[in-house]
Order: sequence, then structure tokens, then C-alpha cells
Amino acid sequence: MAHQVKATPHYKPDDWNIVEEISAWSHCQKYWYQSESIFALGNGYIGMRGTFEEGLSSARHPNHIGSASDEQTLVSVDGTYLNGFYESKVIKYPENAYGNAQNSQTMLNVPNGKIIRVLLSADGNIEPELLQVDTGRLETLIRSLNMKDGLLERRLVWESPVQKLRVELEVRRLVSFKRPHLAAIEFTLVPHFNGRIQLISILNGNVENVSATSDPRIGSHLEGNALIMLEAPLLMPEGGLLQQETKESGLMLVSGMLNVLRTETQHEQLPVVDTAHDGELSGDANLIRVTFEVKAENGSPITLQKFLAYSYAPKQSSTASTMSDEIQKHLTEAAQIGFDELAVEQRAYMQHFWGQADVHISGRDVALLQQGIRFNMFHLLQAAGRDGRTNIGPKGLTGEGYEGHYFWDTEIFAAPFFQYAEPEVCRQLLEYRHSILENARARARILSHPQGVTYPWRTISGEECSAFFPAGTAQYHINADIAYAVKNYVATTGDTSFLVDKGAEIVFETARLWADLGTYVPSLGNAFCIHGVTGPDEYTAIVDNNCYTNLMAQENLRYAVDVAAWLKANEPERLEHIGAGLQPPLAEEEISTWAQAADAMYIPYDEQRGLFAQDDGFFNRPAWRWDWGNRDGQKVLLNRFHYLVIYRHQVCKQADVMLAFFLLPDRATLEQKRRNFDYYEPITTHDSSLSTCTYGILASEIGYREMAYAYFMQTARMDLDDSHGNVAAGVHIANMAGTWMSVVNGFAGLRLEHGQYPGDSIPHYKPYLPDEWESYSFRVRHRQHHVLKVTITRQADTVEVAYSLLADGPSLQPLKIKHHGILFELDSQNAEQRFILADA
Amino acid sequence: MAHQVKATPHYKPDDWNIVEEISAWSHCQKYWYQSESIFALGNGYIGMRGTFEEGLSSARHPNHIGSASDEQTLVSVDGTYLNGFYESKVIKYPENAYGNAQNSQTMLNVPNGKIIRVLLSADGNIEPELLQVDTGRLETLIRSLNMKDGLLERRLVWESPVQKLRVELEVRRLVSFKRPHLAAIEFTLVPHFNGRIQLISILNGNVENVSATSDPRIGSHLEGNALIMLEAPLLMPEGGLLQQETKESGLMLVSGMLNVLRTETQHEQLPVVDTAHDGELSGDANLIRVTFEVKAENGSPITLQKFLAYSYAPKQSSTASTMSDEIQKHLTEAAQIGFDELAVEQRAYMQHFWGQADVHISGRDVALLQQGIRFNMFHLLQAAGRDGRTNIGPKGLTGEGYEGHYFWDTEIFAAPFFQYAEPEVCRQLLEYRHSILENARARARILSHPQGVTYPWRTISGEECSAFFPAGTAQYHINADIAYAVKNYVATTGDTSFLVDKGAEIVFETARLWADLGTYVPSLGNAFCIHGVTGPDEYTAIVDNNCYTNLMAQENLRYAVDVAAWLKANEPERLEHIGAGLQPPLAEEEISTWAQAADAMYIPYDEQRGLFAQDDGFFNRPAWRWDWGNRDGQKVLLNRFHYLVIYRHQVCKQADVMLAFFLLPDRATLEQKRRNFDYYEPITTHDSSLSTCTYGILASEIGYREMAYAYFMQTARMDLDDSHGNVAAGVHIANMAGTWMSVVNGFAGLRLEHGQYPGDSIPHYKPYLPDEWESYSFRVRHRQHHVLKVTITRQADTVEVAYSLLADGPSLQPLKIKHHGILFELDSQNAEQRFILADA
Repeated sequence: MAHQVKATPHYKPDDWNIVEEISAWSHCQKYWYQSESIFALGNGYIGMRGTFEEGLSSARHPNHIGSASDEQTLVSVDGTYLNGFYESKVIKYPENAYGNAQNSQTMLNVPNGKIIRVLLSADGNIEPELLQVDTGRLETLIRSLNMKDGLLERRLVWESPVQKLRVELEVRRLVSFKRPHLAAIEFTLVPHFNGRIQLISILNGNVENVSATSDPRIGSHLEGNALIMLEAPLLMPEGGLLQQETKESGLMLVSGMLNVLRTETQHEQLPVVDTAHDGELSGDANLIRVTFEVKAENGSPITLQKFLAYSYAPKQSSTASTMSDEIQKHLTEAAQIGFDELAVEQRAYMQHFWGQADVHISGRDVALLQQGIRFNMFHLLQAAGRDGRTNIGPKGLTGEGYEGHYFWDTEIFAAPFFQYAEPEVCRQLLEYRHSILENARARARILSHPQGVTYPWRTISGEECSAFFPAGTAQYHINADIAYAVKNYVATTGDTSFLVDKGAEIVFETARLWADLGTYVPSLGNAFCIHGVTGPDEYTAIVDNNCYTNLMAQENLRYAVDVAAWLKANEPERLEHIGAGLQPPLAEEEISTWAQAADAMYIPYDEQRGLFAQDDGFFNRPAWRWDWGNRDGQKVLLNRFHYLVIYRHQVCKQADVMLAFFLLPDRATLEQKRRNFDYYEPITTHDSSLSTCTYGILASEIGYREMAYAYFMQTARMDLDDSHGNVAAGVHIANMAGTWMSVVNGFAGLRLEHGQYPGDSIPHYKPYLPDEWESYSFRVRHRQHHVLKVTITRQADTVEVAYSLLADGPSLQPLKIKHHGILFELDSQNAEQRFILADA
Repeated sequence: MAHQVKATPHYKPDDWNIVEEISAWSHCQKYWYQSESIFALGNGYIGMRGTFEEGLSSARHPNHIGSASDEQTLVSVDGTYLNGFYESKVIKYPENAYGNAQNSQTMLNVPNGKIIRVLLSADGNIEPELLQVDTGRLETLIRSLNMKDGLLERRLVWESPVQKLRVELEVRRLVSFKRPHLAAIEFTLVPHFNGRIQLISILNGNVENVSATSDPRIGSHLEGNALIMLEAPLLMPEGGLLQQETKESGLMLVSGMLNVLRTETQHEQLPVVDTAHDGELSGDANLIRVTFEVKAENGSPITLQKFLAYSYAPKQSSTASTMSDEIQKHLTEAAQIGFDELAVEQRAYMQHFWGQADVHISGRDVALLQQGIRFNMFHLLQAAGRDGRTNIGPKGLTGEGYEGHYFWDTEIFAAPFFQYAEPEVCRQLLEYRHSILENARARARILSHPQGVTYPWRTISGEECSAFFPAGTAQYHINADIAYAVKNYVATTGDTSFLVDKGAEIVFETARLWADLGTYVPSLGNAFCIHGVTGPDEYTAIVDNNCYTNLMAQENLRYAVDVAAWLKANEPERLEHIGAGLQPPLAEEEISTWAQAADAMYIPYDEQRGLFAQDDGFFNRPAWRWDWGNRDGQKVLLNRFHYLVIYRHQVCKQADVMLAFFLLPDRATLEQKRRNFDYYEPITTHDSSLSTCTYGILASEIGYREMAYAYFMQTARMDLDDSHGNVAAGVHIANMAGTWMSVVNGFAGLRLEHGQYPGDSIPHYKPYLPDEWESYSFRVRHRQHHVLKVTITRQADTVEVAYSLLADGPSLQPLKIKHHGILFELDSQNAEQRFILADA
């Protein structure tokens, strides 16, 4: 167990807020880069890193850091991102090979609209001074990510270095959940002097992404600004628009800002709206500037409300002028409503979310964990694409790690959260997978599969972008992961319409892939084997019969058979239609080959030791040389050892067999799970942020409660304590979902019991109460409309579990639930059931 | 069997010459690019492609070919190369990883000194015309690679397009074996008109390499000219020098030319020596030009002798002026001697070579094969570095394929030829491996081996340059291959001084690597297993217990034990010295661990089927889908299928188990060899040029004579018939050695029986006569000074084998030989022994 919760965390413990409170700039400096991710806002469409509007004198983009001789220089990525908005570039391989991913895709940093420069001057002819808290004297600075309201708030008092002009600043920022294209800033200055203040509000189109580094997880294929101005900036009174396009990916982007200034004194003059050229390369103006000259009167507040809107579309589908009109409409509407009203909308959205999804714990010293849980849930909510064309990157929209690509993280880690917390979002995430079926088909052909699909290991638009295939394209399991998420989404929500419309096609196409990929091996009694793939554990690659892959492929095949049978019985025309649309059309006999392959699936298992082998050769490999290092907080192995060295040893980056145990709980007995846990846990480095939560959940299931709790602490605070040391590149979305799962699937033991037909299932809870806690409760949605609250409370000598139905859909069946094997039902008449835990 | 010898080859059959004879330019055009490799000259230091001195109007470097709309445009790489002279560049990976090769190395194209432009004009003011045989009317063109004399000869008659000026041209070119820094051209024009001729002899420093292509085997990491002028060209009367340096690799290059014109008429004026700037980028002059104005008199020959010299050195070790002085000396000496005398030297060298190494065959229709054999031997001789600091690239010095890197091709394919044909060269090749021990040590540390060496899979200077580690660094077997070559060189030559001086250190360091790399696996009865490596067959990668690797590692370990024991008995101080020089020092106990590992070595073997498994998982993989293609002349699999698809199937690029059978003949019975051959032969694509010869030799051993002959025909004519379709990028050196091996180790069945001590061995011949032949004979050197001629001749009803000692060293022991198990001795007294073959 490497990490414990930090005793003195940088961010102040608080149930609903992430608070950074400092009295001197130097206290903040060291955390600056990571705080940009921590304080990032997003709504699934727009993401904005948590930088200061007024800027810092010492902040530099990583691409512009030179010899780093200046210790005062802050690394900073003042990023704004749009989900699904990317640039593409041909990937150059030092040794190319057939079928290599052809093009990179990088989520682009889009025009920076956060900037509000503040120039202060006392009366007289003195040179005005820039408000920048890393100069002058900072009296106090407090900023807070307000998760209840969905706001980023900041307050500071500062005195300028030369003229000693003292100002108070209060800022509120939101990225609107209700209005996907909109963000807003309220920027209030209270001068403690008389003089003049110049506010320059900027929308800067000269932005760039972080360039590639030696760490394969960070940095892009791009250099410099990837956005090309379509025409000169469009100016409006107190604002303007930038119209840009990408060179290779064929996307068009419109960014806009509108500013509204309110002062108690008179404006010195009308604001000046102009443009400028920013950046090293020559070219047209790519920056819009609105300059307000205001009279500063001691104690009299000056408030600038700034509204930002972004939209992008493929070039062919949209004209710049239509998009610009829409952006202008968003902006003027927002300005009319004003920041306060937008904040009210935002709070309402958050209230609804927490009302159906909150997790609450109580006990001694749980404040940090409670904060971590809500922080992680809040970032999940901010990360997820909701339009069926976008998804969730491993860093959400908080940073540029992994270039903003979508991985299996969505289906295996985020989807379980969303299917219970926001099922509508979960459906949109899966619709995205349907939308890229054509890409996955084309990729399968390149990989010599005459039918079926191979989903890309990493992508934005659907095209495979993984440039190192042993830990990329070789991870065929992503196909089964997606089918698995479809199955579970349909089963938990009962949303069979999704299955009929889109899910079935995904399930059939992935099943086809497995049937084609595998082979019956005579020497293994004609078992169905899968060769030459990489499992979730990337510390071995291109292996035969990866246990996880084979189990998940089997599940995929069986589900495809079930779905086909169900469609045949219930929607025969639809089955015919889907089948006829496939290439070649789906035939009855083919479906029976799926069942056959699933039944014959080879699962590598050592009878004598009762161990599932991660792959055919795993147990024969030498043990890792732990004297070489890792575990206990050292750098990840992949940054210190050649892949060949890692591959050659019995060492795991992350849960592999264990993950299969969690996802397919019936595939092993409790005793087998314990035995395998005992084997795999000590050889797993958790160098992936996807690992600890899985181990924690399994530890709960097998009764290793102390370990479960320790793992939970790691997941809950991973980003807030930056225990992986790379939160600067963005938060770890999959782990964040893992925190939620650690409570709901871990401590409360939720597993799904699938019913007779795809839309049917019973949630089965086997809760226990960690010794450290007095109680915990969580809310989940079952079958779309039921909101269930589960509360586990310590009594005098026992533990009580209460299941309460908080909301009920119209004319719904009662909700069937199992509690430690006992089936019961809740409905509006009989809305609560209590149990006493036997073993507490 | 895919390829047969072409019925109508492009190059005329001839025992000692490769002849291209054409009556119209269009006949030649299609073969132009490949002929540049076929007609390349070299001496192991300099290599020059077979282009025309006077140039062609339609020839373009591949980097400058545009839309290729012009069908008349010839692809041409007018290359000159120096063995070991390279430029380096940081390798950029789209997804980098720890321990990846850091820098590329590319054998550089060096200043082109071949150019002699010819301008013809009749008397009067008419615009002169360039002699270029792809314009005007070509009456006849014949060129010939004269392998007896070591010359490239050319003769043509041509008429200019406008003025219809008729000229005869005769050219002789050599790259001197005796003088490694020197090349020479004799260029004789006979005008059949009266008028003027301008000869412009050029040394052009603006040269570039072929840039990367989609085929991983062709193209470099470089773009544009990698050579930087150190100072302005140094002019001399009728010549000059260019001093250049590389930017990254720290090498300095001096190239020089000197021209001597002889005419029967008077010169019109003194030659003009000047410089110019060539190339797109601006910069200093990088071209030297000597212009001769000559009166053309009908029938009166004009002869230009042009001498070229090249030398390079690390910047720190040499000053440009010292090198320039040496080059000048080489040139003036050559000019004094004259071309004729250089040609005499060259002939003497070749006479000596053929005298001790020639292979001769007779029979019906053997002309093409005879030509192929000598062609291949001649190119081997041209390819090999002889200075202990350079080696042999897979294309020799004939082209830019594989960037001129050195691979295992040297030790496993070329060394067997050289140890019998030119043992001194063989020693130099192995000395090179000793010279890069430090690099191999450093690389081993990066790969987490605390001791021992890992030789680079591909390199020039010793640094690993393979940018795709699954088919690069993972090929650990190269370490055993090098140790194997040391063992066999010492055993055939008796040169134990090399073993004492350098070989032992190589053998110990490689043995250490194996001891560290492998692991005892309890579940396999504590067999010593080697995990996560790639064998010679690159169509599976990163496997466990590659059969070839394990067998060769075992051999390496055993030999290390033997060498240590022998040194202890014979050179105890030397053993101590070597052992003390290692890190950590070598201890007695460590040597016993080598023996232990070798004895416990796991060899994957299927008892039931009597098959050696290429690796642990090989037999379980599905069969290749031959309906997808390959064999029978189609493109290599790696250019049409994703590596994952290839890796997943039972399909081999090249001999793997079979190669082990050839190298370690005692490790399998004849019956086992036959059984495994029957299994592996049909699943091998021979997509590597290293494969067919091995299969041919094995086919001979197991009595598959028809197949052996067919394979032999493929190797013998692979480049002359361009059966791999890529000879343009250079000849296939390993295959060329394979041709020689197919005769000596294949038909004549030579295997080495190792004796009691490292320098002791008996050659064991088991010859047979292919049905197609009347006789064949070959010469080999045994124990350095013995030159043995073996002649196999068809008699009336029998076949006779004669072993004749042609030359004998001073005071040598008699030569022990085995013939089909019968031991006999030859010495100067008893210099011949004859046998009648029983089964003929």
C-alpha cells in the first residue's frame, strides 16, 4: 500500500469546495501547474483550465520554457478545449510498417477568452501597473471550486509593487451545463485608491498545444498554432468573434466574447474594440481586445461580466456565418440574462445532479475523503460529452494528457458511474461508439478481418491514433469492453430502445470480430484461443490467451447470441434489418458459431494453484526484481525500464485478471478471487490510474477490508494529492469513476444480476461499513427513473442498511433489489426497507 | 519453389563477366536503377554505384522525382559510399519509450567524383551538345563487370541528336583493392568528326541520401545534403579537394580528384580549374570543376584519366590538413603510376583471390549459375570492411538499403565465406565487434542487465539504431551469433591469437548476458528459459524460448566455459587479465553458472510430433491463410499485413529452427531434420533474402536434392535476376554468401568438427553431385595457409571426389579432412586423395 491520504493537503478540507487559501504567493507557486487542472471547469463540451484572468508575470507555456534557469518561472498551460475539436497530422514512424495508424489527432487548445488585463494608476502621469499577484504584495488569496453551485470563485487583496495601489478582486467563473456553448466570468475590482483603471478584455486566437515530451503520456504531435484565421476578426460593440479553421482535420471554429462593464462611477470613455496580431509568425490579426478606461474611486466596485461562446463543425456541414450568428445569439442572450441568472441555472443543474447521485460519508477524519469523492464526481460530470458524437478523454477537458483521446476508460470506468448517476449521458457516450462503426469496420479490414469491427485504441474522430501498436491496436479487448458497456447500460436502465436502435449492431459487429480472430486449437482439446493480443495490463504485450480478453470476448459472444434471440422474438424485423445491413449479411448459422466459440473459449487456468494465468506464458516468466525499484511512490516502470525488460517479467501495470473478476463476478468463486488477489496484488505496480479502484473493489468483495480502505483512499485523493505526480496534464477521469465505484460496488458491493431479457436486471447489494466510518449513503438511478438512496449507518452494536426510494417514474414497475441475497421490492407505497447487517 | 532461373536474363551469360549489351537505349532503361547496384564497384572502404560518368538527361534522384508523369524519367542514385562514414540524427518516435534507440545512423552519400561531362561541337558557332546516350542515336552500348580483373568496362558508339556528331567512348573504372582510398577512371573518346570537345571533370560535394519511404527497408532519416563544407575547395592543377564534416556524428571527410588528359592532338588551351556552388540552398562553393578544351580530330583518341581518393576520420583524431595531404599524396602517386598499372595491381589481387577461393561448375546450362556464383563472391569481396573498425552492410557498399547498417548477416552469413576465402578479412570483421564492446556494454545496462553485453541489432558506430525494438533490440540472438562466429573463425583458421587478444572477451561478455537474461522455471523442471526475445524469424516477435536463440545461447555459454578452461590451461595470465577487466571481475564460480545454464537450457520440442517449436506458443497459433497470398512471387507479407496479423499465425519470414540445424548440426538427427524441414518449409515465405540458402543447405543434408537445387538457383541469381524486386537499393550480401555456402556447405556438405581445443577442428565433407551438373570444384583455405581444392566429377557410372592441396604454409601440420566419415590427411608430400561416391 503505497499512498496514504496526506496529513496536510494543499487544498483545504471542505465538504463542498476545493479551497486554496494562501497568504503569500510563494505558497501557491509550487502547486500552480497542477491547480490549473484541479480548478478546471467544464460542461462536456467546453473545458477551461483554472488560470487567473489577469495573468501572472512569471507564467510560461511549457513550449516556451528555456533553460529553466529561472526558478521563479511557472509552467502554465492556459488551456481552453472543446470536446471533439482536434487537429490531425500524418504520423511519421522511424520504421514504418503496414497498417500503422496513419494520423495523429490532438484535442486543440482553442482561443483564450479568459484574459482580462488590469492596469492600475494613481492620478498623475505615473506608468500604470499590471495587476499580477506574483509581483507586488499579496495580502490574501482564496480560490474555491464550488461543487454545489458549479462555480469557480476567487477573492484576493493585493498591493502593486511601485505605486502601492491596493485592490480587492473577486472573480466568479462558470462553464454552463445548461448552455453547452457558453462560459461566463464575473470580474469585480474594488480599488482602494483613487486614480484610473484600464481593463483590457481579450480573446486571443494565438494558442498552441504542449509539444511532445519524452513521457509518452504527455504532449502532442503539433507544434505552434494549429488554427488558421478564416477571415479578419469580426468586431461587435464590446466584443467580437474569431473564425478559424484547422488545416488537416477539416473543422471550423467560431469563438466569441462579449463584455458588460458595470461601475458606480462614470466610464471615462466608451470602450475601444480593436484587433491585433499575436504570435511569432506574421499573419493577420488573431486577437480581439476590448479596452475599458475606468475611473478608480476608493471603495467603489467595478464589475466586468465577460461572456464566452465556442462552437465548431465540419467545414462542409456549416458555413462560418451561420455559426457566427449562433455564437452571437448565445452571447447576447447571456449578456441579457447576466451572470447572476446563469449562476442560478447552474446551481439548479447541480442540485438536480447531487439530488440523484450524491455520496455522503460521516465519521472521524473523513472530510478529506468526502471532499475527494465529490471532487471526482464533479469532474466526471464536467468531462462527459453529451451529444452522441463526443466522449470522455482520460483527462476529461482539464488538460492535454494523451492528446484528449478517447480510450476504453469510458466503457469500463466512466460508464458504470454514468449509467447510475446520469443514464442519459451514458447513452450518449455509447451512441458515440455507434457513430464510429464505419471507422472500426475499415480498421478491421486493414487488420485482415474480413468482417466485424476493431475499435480504435485511442481516437477522437474514430480513426485509430495509437502509434505504438503493442500497447495500442493490440488491445483488442476494447471491442468486448464496448459490448459489455452496452449490455450493462441496457440492463440497468431498461433502455432496450437503444439496444434496438444502435446497441445490437455494436454487439453483433464486435462478436463477429472475436469469431474471426480466435481459432480452435487441437492440442488444447479444440479450445477456442485468441492469439497475439495485449490485455489491459500493458506490462506484457502481444500475448496468447490473455485471460481478461478471452473472458470478455466470451461475454461479448454470448451477449450477441442473447440479443439476437431476443430481437428475433421481439423485434424480428429489426433483427432482419440490422443483419441485412452488415457486410456480409448476418445469417442464422453465424450466430450459432458465436455460441460455439463462446462455449469453447479457452481460459488459462492453473488447476493446481487455483490461479488464472494472465496469459499463456505468464507464470513461466521470472519474478520482477523489486530491488530494481517501484511500488512505494517511485516513478512508473515504463519511464525507467525498456519494454522488453518489463514484458519479460511477472509484473503488472494494472488490474487484468482482477478486472475480469469485477466485471464478470460469476466467473470465479470467492475462494478463487482471494487466491488470485493474493497472487496478483503484490506484483502489480498500479502504474496506471485505472488499477487501484479495481483492486479496492475486489478487496471489499473478498473481505480484505483494511486493504480495500487503503486502496479507496488512494483513488479518492489521487488528483487532489497529485499522488501520480502528473495531474498538471489533467485529472485522472477513470480513477475518479473508480472512487465512486469503490463506494457503490466496493463497500456497498453492488453487482448486477442480469435477468431473462436484455432490459431486465436486479441490483444486488452486499454492503458493509468500513470500520473508519460512522455511516455512508449514496444515491443511484435504477431503471432510469427510480432514484434509490442507500444508507449504511452504525448503530450501538450493529449496522443498519436502509434502501429508500426517493423518486419514482410514472406507472413504473416496483424496483426489485437484492440485499445480501434477499430479494425485496420498493415502490411509492412501500418506499423503504431496512436491514441489520449480520457480520457488523 | 517460386523462382526459376530466368530463361532470358537481362545480363548476358558469361563465366567471368556481367555483360549488358544493348542496341537501343530503350532496352536498357527499365534496368537502369537495378544496374547501378549490379555494376557497383567497391573495395570494402569505397563503394561506387554503376552510373555513367557522362550522365543521362533523364536520370533523377528518387528525392527529386515528382509526379512521375514522365515515363522517360529514370530513377537513379548516383551514390558513392565510404564504409563506416555516416551521419546521425535524433530519432523521433510518435510514442517514445524508455530505452528506445536514440539516434539514427545513415551511411552517407559522399561527393560524386565520377562525373565527366562531354560537350561536342563541330567547327563553327553551333551550340555544343552534351554526350548523353538517352538522347541522340545510340548505335551500340556494351558494359561489363569484369570479375577476373576487378574492372568495370564500357564501350559505346553514339551520334548526337542535332549535329549528328558520332563518337566512340571507352571507359574503364576500378576501385582499388590494394589502395583502399583510391578509385580510378579511364575515359577514352574517339571522335568521328572534326571540331571541338569540352571535357568537364567534376567532384561534386552536393550529394544526398534517399529519404524515408513507406517500405521500412529503404530510405534514411536524412533530408538534403548532410555534409557541411569546412572551408572553400582546395584547388590543385587539374584537380582539387573538398573538406567537409558532418553535423552530428563528428566525422571529417576529405574527397579529392586529379585528372590527366592525353590526346594525340594538341590541347586547345590549359585546363581551367574552378569551383561552383551546387544545390538549392545557398552557401559556399561545394563543387570543383576541371575543364579541358580539346580539338576533336576524326579517329584520334582523347583519354582522360581521373583519380579519386576519399578518407574520413573522427574530428578530434585528425586535422583536415593532414588528411588533405594524405589524399593529395594518394592522388599524385596514382597519377604517376597511371591507370594501366593500377589495373595490373587490381588483376593481381583478383588472381590471388580466385586462386584460393574460386568455385567452378560445369554441365549443361550452367552458365547462368556459374556467373551468379562468381558475381556473388565478387560482391562479397567488394563489401567487407578490412580495418577492424568497419563491417559489412546488408547491401555492402552498393546501395542505401537499411541505411548501410551492420546486422548479424556478417557473422552468420558472410563470416563463413570469409573464414574460408579470406580469413584475414574475417578476423577484421570480428575485430570490429571487439571495437564496439563498450557500446554493447552500455546498451546492456539500459536493458537492465547489470553485466554482459547486448550487441546492437543494427548500427554503424556501435550504438543501437533499430527504431522498432520488437524486430530490433529484441533479437538478442545476435550476441550468440557473434560468439558463434568467433568460435568458428578460430576453429577453422587456428588463429588462437585472436581468441586470446579479443575473441575471449566477446565470448565471456555475451555468455554473461545469457546467464543474466535467462531464468530457471520450476514448472518446467527448472529448465533454463529465455523470455521475451525475437528470433531470426521476424514474423513472430517478443516470444518465450525461441528455439534458435536458446540453442545458440547454449552454444555461447558452453564455448565460454571451454575458452575459459583452455585459457586457464594455456594462457592463465591472459585469462586473469581479461577477467579482471570485466565489470564485475570474472570469478571461477561464475563460469560454472554458465555451464549450469547451458546444461539446463530449455529447448521447446514436441516429442509426439518430433518437432522443435520455433517458440513456446508457435504450434498453437492458427495456420497462415495462404488464400490471403504470398509465396510465388508476391509482395512480402510485411508490406501487406499488419504485424499483429503476421505474428498471430504460423508463418515464417525466414529460416529459424532450420538455421539452428545448419549452424549446430549435431543438435538434431537426420530424421528430425527431415521432419522439421517438412513442417517448416511450407510455412516459410522467404521474405528475407537470408532464408533460401539455409533451406537449400538443409535440403542437401536431408537428401532433398531437387529442392536443394531449386533453392540454390534462387540464391545464385537472386540479384542478377532481381527476384526480390529491390536490388536497386543494393545487392543482398547475406544471400550472396548463401550461394557460396549452398555449394560448399550444401552440395559438398562441409561441416566443421570441433577439436579438443579452440584452434582445432576437422572439416568434414559429405559431397554429392547435383544431377544437373557434370562437375564442380571449389577452393577453400583451411587453417589459414592450406589451400584445398575439392573437385567432384561425374565419371562414366560413378562420381569421383578429389581433395587436392594446392598450397601449403611453412612448417605446417598436415591437413586433416573427413570425407563422408573417413578421416585422411594431406600434406605437400601427399597432396591429393580421391574417393568414389557410393550413392552416385
